[in-house]
Amino acid sequence: MAGRNLGRMATSPLLDDLRAALGPDAVLTDPDLLRGHERDEADLCASATPLVVTRPSSTEEVVAVVRAAGRHGVPVVPQGARTGLAGAANSVAGAVVISTTSMNAILEIDPVSRIAVVQPGVVNAALTAAVSEQGLWYPPDPGSWESSTIGGNVATNAGGMCCVKYGVTTEYVLGLEVVLASGEVLRTGRRTAKGVAGYDLTRLFVGSEGTLGVITEVTVALRPAPAESLTLVAVFGSTAGAGEAVARIAAQGLSPSLLELLDRTHLGAIEAYRPMGLRTDAEALLLAAADTGPRAAADLAELAAVCEAAGAEEVYAASDAVEAAALLQARRSAHPAMEKYAAEAYPGGSGGLIIDDLAVPRGALAALLDGVARISAECQVPIGVVGHAGDGNMHPNIVVDRADPASLERGRRAFDEIMRLGLDLGGTCTGEHGVGLLKRDWLAREIGPVGVRVHQAIKAALDPTGLLNPGKVL
Amino acid sequence: MAGRNLGRMATSPLLDDLRAALGPDAVLTDPDLLRGHERDEADLCASATPLVVTRPSSTEEVVAVVRAAGRHGVPVVPQGARTGLAGAANSVAGAVVISTTSMNAILEIDPVSRIAVVQPGVVNAALTAAVSEQGLWYPPDPGSWESSTIGGNVATNAGGMCCVKYGVTTEYVLGLEVVLASGEVLRTGRRTAKGVAGYDLTRLFVGSEGTLGVITEVTVALRPAPAESLTLVAVFGSTAGAGEAVARIAAQGLSPSLLELLDRTHLGAIEAYRPMGLRTDAEALLLAAADTGPRAAADLAELAAVCEAAGAEEVYAASDAVEAAALLQARRSAHPAMEKYAAEAYPGGSGGLIIDDLAVPRGALAALLDGVARISAECQVPIGVVGHAGDGNMHPNIVVDRADPASLERGRRAFDEIMRLGLDLGGTCTGEHGVGLLKRDWLAREIGPVGVRVHQAIKAALDPTGLLNPGKVL
Repeated sequence: MAGRNLGRMATSPLLDDLRAALGPDAVLTDPDLLRGHERDEADLCASATPLVVTRPSSTEEVVAVVRAAGRHGVPVVPQGARTGLAGAANSVAGAVVISTTSMNAILEIDPVSRIAVVQPGVVNAALTAAVSEQGLWYPPDPGSWESSTIGGNVATNAGGMCCVKYGVTTEYVLGLEVVLASGEVLRTGRRTAKGVAGYDLTRLFVGSEGTLGVITEVTVALRPAPAESLTLVAVFGSTAGAGEAVARIAAQGLSPSLLELLDRTHLGAIEAYRPMGLRTDAEALLLAAADTGPRAAADLAELAAVCEAAGAEEVYAASDAVEAAALLQARRSAHPAMEKYAAEAYPGGSGGLIIDDLAVPRGALAALLDGVARISAECQVPIGVVGHAGDGNMHPNIVVDRADPASLERGRRAFDEIMRLGLDLGGTCTGEHGVGLLKRDWLAREIGPVGVRVHQAIKAALDPTGLLNPGKVL
Repeated sequence: MAGRNLGRMATSPLLDDLRAALGPDAVLTDPDLLRGHERDEADLCASATPLVVTRPSSTEEVVAVVRAAGRHGVPVVPQGARTGLAGAANSVAGAVVISTTSMNAILEIDPVSRIAVVQPGVVNAALTAAVSEQGLWYPPDPGSWESSTIGGNVATNAGGMCCVKYGVTTEYVLGLEVVLASGEVLRTGRRTAKGVAGYDLTRLFVGSEGTLGVITEVTVALRPAPAESLTLVAVFGSTAGAGEAVARIAAQGLSPSLLELLDRTHLGAIEAYRPMGLRTDAEALLLAAADTGPRAAADLAELAAVCEAAGAEEVYAASDAVEAAALLQARRSAHPAMEKYAAEAYPGGSGGLIIDDLAVPRGALAALLDGVARISAECQVPIGVVGHAGDGNMHPNIVVDRADPASLERGRRAFDEIMRLGLDLGGTCTGEHGVGLLKRDWLAREIGPVGVRVHQAIKAALDPTGLLNPGKVL
């Protein structure tokens, strides 16, 4: 196959430079592969075919790619596993993609300092497994954790189910190595547990979606492995009741290690996808867990009591770790289950999902859920809601018929209405998926003209020619 | 007194503008007051008398001060309670000081969202008290917590004893209102528990020591009040043994809520300051606590066992909350006790302290303590060490004779040697006090030329004329 490709290998001065620096095997121009690297998993976002996909295997090679692209005035688009949901990894036409998949070494795990140093292409699950062998834990657990990379997690500041107690990715990033648009290599942060030296550049790069630099090394903080958790399910006859329970849990000072909500649409979709006996007649289900060791049973009982007081029809604890794992797996399958549900909702499998992501203050969760139901009715599109109820981070998933422009238009209107509602409730336009291409307009509304100007000033200071991931965030 | 001052009130076009905007009572030019606002509590740092101290009482008044100073080309120096230890609040000659002390309202406490919104002049202890009335907790507890302001804590990213388990100030800052050098008002961050929208401007401003903007409002995250903690003391015959205990505590996955170290010099100084029966013959004392509720006694027993295995001569638990509070108070008195010890170490009370602050990876703590003892001997200056051992953040306090240039010179050499040792051990030049004026050269060494350039680029992007707190950090 190499021979076949060599016969019609694309050439250009830029490609020659890249091949000279990286060797031909790390400079890919196969048309199918290029098309496969056009985009991440976000719908509704523009993308285009890159000129080339590079797979550098060292920081020096990333520097070479960035410098070559800069010399030739060709934009650079960094990519991890392309599991993002906001289009942040989408290519623009003719770009140089930097895929970090060949930089996938775990360089160090230090149980005393409780840190790991990894290359950006390390898959989240691989890091999680490696540190757990030493009794340690890397908490961030985005839905994509089995395939997404640490570099991508850092670039998008990925969240997950752990966040309600343990926070998003940025809480675990101590330091970075970043290749700047200039080709310079910047080291930020530290290896120490504590440190306040200079501007917090580390967290400026976390979540900047490849627009300020290409991450080539990540130093993360680890935690001791938590105690095994106990899990309960609370079944509600109304989403507002579930929202009320979440507010009361917070008000009473409880700190569950997981507090997830599934609405009726998702319960049905999950049962259809992989039957496990979920109550599909419920309007909402809360899944909660306590990982507090000897105190967990008492904490779970408190959570149960609050859910009952908030009107839960039924509350039951998982009888053992197997049942708890099955419940967690059901929650984790919400995304593929809804994809299947959406596809089958329209003839010929033309249905699709607009996956939304926003966060509101916990106290506004019930109002958000009510509002989404109203928007669903007004816009005449089905909307299922699932998400991290404990931190007010919800994913309203809008079901549309891709083959029907009117359905798509109604879906977009619902999306905008939900964004508007979220901001009106004191929320933010993205709780964990990021801005990418999908939320640029809503970010601008959220942060206002001064916020946009400051973003632009920082982007211009670090990437004056707009080389890196153009069009994202801003 | 107003009449007396009015008779010789300083005037200038800038002062006229300030008085017109703020009223005369908030524009202070009394020479004694100006001298009192020259500096914070850091030694070895340059300072000079400001032209004027302003006490704006609203964001709009801060805008007016910044715009007036900008028009007249006069630098602006923001100040809180001036308890900082790196000179970040020191004035330059002829500056306009913005004192936030009149902006001291707690605007909101929301127990469901677990947030508080405060003006920058609110004293840490006042916020702590107000939220504790609602069963909530604001963890950051710098040594100055009874007098320092939240604005100052945020500007310096202050630490404290809680950090070993709960992190520094930046972990608790969700959003800010900041007046930029342009006079524009920027709002950063969010009120939600979770959110990843755009660049993390909030944390860019946290710890930027007033060089990027003047903080006028802070939204902080709160936690439920922790369970009452149990406390133990472990007495060591060598500092290396104490360092070894800290490393083992981390390696075994324990998470004490406090893990402090006092060396022999500090034990003696504290006993002399307020006798309480501390073992002044010990080389080092570790103070540890567990706040894990029903698990605390077991956790404390594990901590005790690790200390004994690491060679502690004696380990004892505080018999009750009163004794635990007394031990904590002893630790908190380390700073004034050492000041007294230093003053009395030289005739005429001419002794003083160079207070240092650095952090190393936990595993390097024993090496740091050994190294500091070696440097003390080599430079012929007494150095006491105290600090937050659990996160590797130590304060070597160098005793010098202010009246003796040779002693001061030896003290400075020891300071530099300690900084060099810290960086060689993989550490950072400041764990919690910040850079200010004191550590600018060491920050530059730590972050390297690319890091310095990126700092300068960000400063230039946000404050192109260098109006805000000139000479700090960079």
